[in-house]
Amino acid sequence: MGTLAEEIFSYRLGRPVVAGDTVVVDVDHVMSHDTTTPLAIKAFRKLTQQNNGRVFDQKRAHIVFDHIIPAATIQAATLHREVRDFAREQEIPILQEGICHQVMPEKGFVLPGSIIVGADSHSCTYGAFGAFGTGMGSTDIGVAYATGRSWFRVPETINVHITGELPPGVFAKDISLEIVRRLGVDGANYRALEYTGEVIENFSMSERMTFSNMAIEMGGKAGLIAADATTQAWLRGRTDKDYPLLRAHNPHYEQIIEIDVSHMKPLVACPPDVNIVHPAEEVEDIKIDQVFLGTCTNGRLDDLEIAANILRGRTISPDLRMVVIPASREIYLEAMRRGYLEIFAAAGASVGTPGCGPCIGRHFGVLAPGERAMTTMNRNFTGRMGDPTAEIYLGSPATVAATALTGHITDPRSVLFTENLV
Amino acid sequence: MGTLAEEIFSYRLGRPVVAGDTVVVDVDHVMSHDTTTPLAIKAFRKLTQQNNGRVFDQKRAHIVFDHIIPAATIQAATLHREVRDFAREQEIPILQEGICHQVMPEKGFVLPGSIIVGADSHSCTYGAFGAFGTGMGSTDIGVAYATGRSWFRVPETINVHITGELPPGVFAKDISLEIVRRLGVDGANYRALEYTGEVIENFSMSERMTFSNMAIEMGGKAGLIAADATTQAWLRGRTDKDYPLLRAHNPHYEQIIEIDVSHMKPLVACPPDVNIVHPAEEVEDIKIDQVFLGTCTNGRLDDLEIAANILRGRTISPDLRMVVIPASREIYLEAMRRGYLEIFAAAGASVGTPGCGPCIGRHFGVLAPGERAMTTMNRNFTGRMGDPTAEIYLGSPATVAATALTGHITDPRSVLFTENLV
Repeated sequence: MGTLAEEIFSYRLGRPVVAGDTVVVDVDHVMSHDTTTPLAIKAFRKLTQQNNGRVFDQKRAHIVFDHIIPAATIQAATLHREVRDFAREQEIPILQEGICHQVMPEKGFVLPGSIIVGADSHSCTYGAFGAFGTGMGSTDIGVAYATGRSWFRVPETINVHITGELPPGVFAKDISLEIVRRLGVDGANYRALEYTGEVIENFSMSERMTFSNMAIEMGGKAGLIAADATTQAWLRGRTDKDYPLLRAHNPHYEQIIEIDVSHMKPLVACPPDVNIVHPAEEVEDIKIDQVFLGTCTNGRLDDLEIAANILRGRTISPDLRMVVIPASREIYLEAMRRGYLEIFAAAGASVGTPGCGPCIGRHFGVLAPGERAMTTMNRNFTGRMGDPTAEIYLGSPATVAATALTGHITDPRSVLFTENLV
Repeated sequence: MGTLAEEIFSYRLGRPVVAGDTVVVDVDHVMSHDTTTPLAIKAFRKLTQQNNGRVFDQKRAHIVFDHIIPAATIQAATLHREVRDFAREQEIPILQEGICHQVMPEKGFVLPGSIIVGADSHSCTYGAFGAFGTGMGSTDIGVAYATGRSWFRVPETINVHITGELPPGVFAKDISLEIVRRLGVDGANYRALEYTGEVIENFSMSERMTFSNMAIEMGGKAGLIAADATTQAWLRGRTDKDYPLLRAHNPHYEQIIEIDVSHMKPLVACPPDVNIVHPAEEVEDIKIDQVFLGTCTNGRLDDLEIAANILRGRTISPDLRMVVIPASREIYLEAMRRGYLEIFAAAGASVGTPGCGPCIGRHFGVLAPGERAMTTMNRNFTGRMGDPTAEIYLGSPATVAATALTGHITDPRSVLFTENLV
């Protein structure tokens, strides 16, 4: 009985709980990355002074290097060294093969019905697998590293029900932006979002991850999608563990958002907030200095494929530069084998090593004052990619690729339709 | 009559000159990159106030973005924007497809018998093509952008004559380090080095470029190799211009260095100077935190091939990380097609976009205090790759790849011989 969030917590606790209950629960996995681990270590050290100083379980504690790798500054390198020393001491391997939110599922750490806490706000991405994934501050993660437990207030749930037939040129990212437009950047504060409906059911794991990833952009504590045969197929070969296929049963939703995608258009979120959303065709006069295809939102194989189909045999506009960063090494290698990376490099893009790239404004494509970027990122906050006077626009991989060709924001349908790419 | 340096200057001036003569000469090409162009612009602006403010020839002025691309900081991005504005004003395309010293020859700008000045010390690399290439300060380059001319004192020449049969595991880089060991870091101050002998004659253009590239490490003004059929074959399809095949005739060399490579071993230059050279087998106890394969010294296809053959089907030591950066987009694409990049990525390396990478300590692999890097770079000066307490070791691509497997400096012969890779 309950929402998917309530079902997950009840399952993990072995007793029924409902929204509003405060619980302390064993977590399945704990994760932090290169820029959040140093602070987590500080909290961890304080707690474990009397406790041998060991993490609760080396196989369920994960450190991913993705934010500023390879190190871009002496400061970053010094923090990396500190974290490497800690990982060596704790006998935790450092995963340096892509963005944490992509690598964690790939390694089989994200299973339906599990609870995962991460020292990164986009840990909600794991919700695409029917896992309660959520981001926490480094101090809370330090506690989780020490104890293997976290406390939660079981959240109320907003159901986003998505139906209709997806028009050509419109992708999971566009629908995600439409949801943020409707709910606002704080419309889901400490709520779980639960995505349902035929559109979600027909989407791949990659597309589902785009939705879950952006739950935090509305303040959501989690962005859940019930696991199904698509989830099982994706996990095959990645885990030999059993997991439950939990679903909501007679749920009480605090709010239900109905979205019919049949008449949607490609959308762009304009700075400085993710809910400032306009049809791409209405903002085509905006000139762009840099396009960026990648991130935990849209750096997966299908995202690269969409962009590669648009860029094949062409070169990017001389008025901008393009950065492409596959979300993980697994994706990087497969994109290379399929020829996508060759298409990007031949088109004039800088293809980076798997990781977060310029999404956090710390390397590999930092923006100068007044510059504008069109990206597949999840955030467009002031100063996120570099100078505070720079502007960030968000859209789908198709919109980003179309923009790369023209030098200004471009509705991808103009390219897709004329080229018969859909 | 004269050394190759004298022959080139005499050819370009149309009259015989000899070492010691001071000449003003029309240069064939002028080059600067992202970090040296801003200062060159300042000098250029001062000189051209009464002169329409145009570069001497848009087709012979070249700006290459290679040092901190994509931008790693707001400061770098701001300088890039300034240079982009200048390039747009002057209608000079910005080349952002690899290291300047690799891209300039690939574009057909480096022809035998020509004179090329660049705002980068390793502009001596062009000497591999029988071109007098030399590095100058940004102010001198600003003058050259304005006037198309530079002044020179025609240099005396040191002849390095290289003979013998190259043992397995020993490469052009090892011989280059041996030359620096013998001459010292100021042993060729303002001299031209002229490389001759059967070993040079049998080497590819890539291997020759390794020698010319390192001329400046001995203070050399140029590192010249007479153009021959190998040069002509490399240039085919890259230029439709005629060029002379100049050679030294009855030259007077200030000094002659004879090197027989037959009994050479793989060498490593130890910090903090390039002439502190030891056999790799004698420094194998040194643990390494980062290996770097790339740069204008050793980032070409044959360099990547040597390393790929060692790393194929293997993974790098968990005790270090590896950065691989092809020297140009052309090399990057071909290395991808041949499967080398897949080998590196699958082995655990971070493959970067073509450019200088961490060689200048400004991004993509900066070293923390006390860390040690084994690299194919040309310089190991204190602080060059990051913290001043970090250490840089220099060797061949084979030595770097062997080190990547073990985590400590490793004589590549131990890998090459046991695996029958040679």
